[in-house]
Amino acid sequence: MLTNPGSDRVRAVRALQRRPVRQRTGRFGVEGPQGVREAVRYAPQRVRDVYVTAEAAQRYAADILGPAHDAGLRVHEVSTEVLAAMSDADAPQGVLAVVDAADTTLAEVLATGPRLLVLLTNVRDPGNAGTVIRGADAAGADAVLVSAASVDVLAPKVVRSTAGSLFHLPVVAGLDTDATLDALAGAGIRRYAADGSGTTLLPEADLAAAHCWVMGNEAWGLPQDTLDRCDEVVRVPIHGRAESLNLAMAATVCLYASAGVQRSARGAG
Amino acid sequence: MLTNPGSDRVRAVRALQRRPVRQRTGRFGVEGPQGVREAVRYAPQRVRDVYVTAEAAQRYAADILGPAHDAGLRVHEVSTEVLAAMSDADAPQGVLAVVDAADTTLAEVLATGPRLLVLLTNVRDPGNAGTVIRGADAAGADAVLVSAASVDVLAPKVVRSTAGSLFHLPVVAGLDTDATLDALAGAGIRRYAADGSGTTLLPEADLAAAHCWVMGNEAWGLPQDTLDRCDEVVRVPIHGRAESLNLAMAATVCLYASAGVQRSARGAG
Repeated sequence: MLTNPGSDRVRAVRALQRRPVRQRTGRFGVEGPQGVREAVRYAPQRVRDVYVTAEAAQRYAADILGPAHDAGLRVHEVSTEVLAAMSDADAPQGVLAVVDAADTTLAEVLATGPRLLVLLTNVRDPGNAGTVIRGADAAGADAVLVSAASVDVLAPKVVRSTAGSLFHLPVVAGLDTDATLDALAGAGIRRYAADGSGTTLLPEADLAAAHCWVMGNEAWGLPQDTLDRCDEVVRVPIHGRAESLNLAMAATVCLYASAGVQRSARGAG
Repeated sequence: MLTNPGSDRVRAVRALQRRPVRQRTGRFGVEGPQGVREAVRYAPQRVRDVYVTAEAAQRYAADILGPAHDAGLRVHEVSTEVLAAMSDADAPQGVLAVVDAADTTLAEVLATGPRLLVLLTNVRDPGNAGTVIRGADAAGADAVLVSAASVDVLAPKVVRSTAGSLFHLPVVAGLDTDATLDALAGAGIRRYAADGSGTTLLPEADLAAAHCWVMGNEAWGLPQDTLDRCDEVVRVPIHGRAESLNLAMAATVCLYASAGVQRSARGAG
């Protein structure tokens, strides 16, 4: 059992809370039972180490420890103090994993013939980014694309707010927005900017086509040159007096509208 | 100009951050330009006092101060220190209003013949509650109903996350869940529990009928006796591997699905 909160190993895990360290090592931390369970289940080849307290090892024996042992993962029992020292959470839940960043490329995603994508171009709030990834997963999107100007999707708060979805679908980060929009066009995928300035209302958009929702910044939306590069600028209708939906809500409404049309078309075909 | 951060008035405003004080006085604080602007615009008869720094008075002259003076409201210039002492925000934005709680009753809402409602039965997270109110406004819902067991919708974090929507549609709080479900039935409004245990998928639900979305707790959903009282238990389809959507996302997806059906039916009729 690891009991020294000041050890090099503990410090190395804690250091993954800092973006430069994540970038240098290509690893990140996943905290809490939901995230660790989904990582072990859907991306075991990327899990480097699992750290767990004695209490959590009992509580999560069936859904985390068992699958982790079956996958041949390294599981380390740690004291409560060690887990707290590794953790970013206010109330650590007894289990944490160190995971390799995904190395899926945009080209690999495009080669699979995706029908529904979302591109975050300038999303800065960790909760928003995580919630969009969770919403994209729920809506059955094929991947989430994230520009270099957005929040780091491997930051603890983003990872936590994806509720495990980070391991359910490809999330390709660090992209150049313009190059990505060009690559989407080259792959025959329509680029729909989701923006309050749009003249096409969501129910009128051609959602049966393969397409990618392009989302801007929480406060200032999408810049004109990005709007100009997209095939359509689509607006979620605001029926009441609200100025707008927040970014994560707008993305989820758009993605569910797309899923509804694409899946009923598939069912009918 | 008010310059004493320790004055009785400043302490009285600050005290509105506490629920017992809000309940005793029937008032609450609204912080920041967006909330104050919407309060002045849509509920001026409920605004008791507006507090503004000299800098903010200049910045928001056209969209807050002008309309506030036109409505005959009491506007007080305050020092930056006084505003900070009144405020709950990490970075106060120079303007704050004290507003009377709305006194709209459930009976009054039902008397208007509402087509689309949402009932929060046990929502505990301020951000979730605020986001649902914002989403309900955007979707054009007729009102938001909130049970006594839910978070106080007049708490600073809820008010802030409604982004002004608190003043755009009736929000009736402090309700008894069972009595409300009975009253809805009596008014001919169908009660649709939004819950992962549902056997009716969202696209299959009869959304053209007048109905109320019934939302449960973030973690444990709706209890069986509430599910039993509802006319249908409806599930947002999860197409990917996510366990669920978060509460605010699920509510917004449901409300937008309802708005889409009801408004296209109205357009066709």
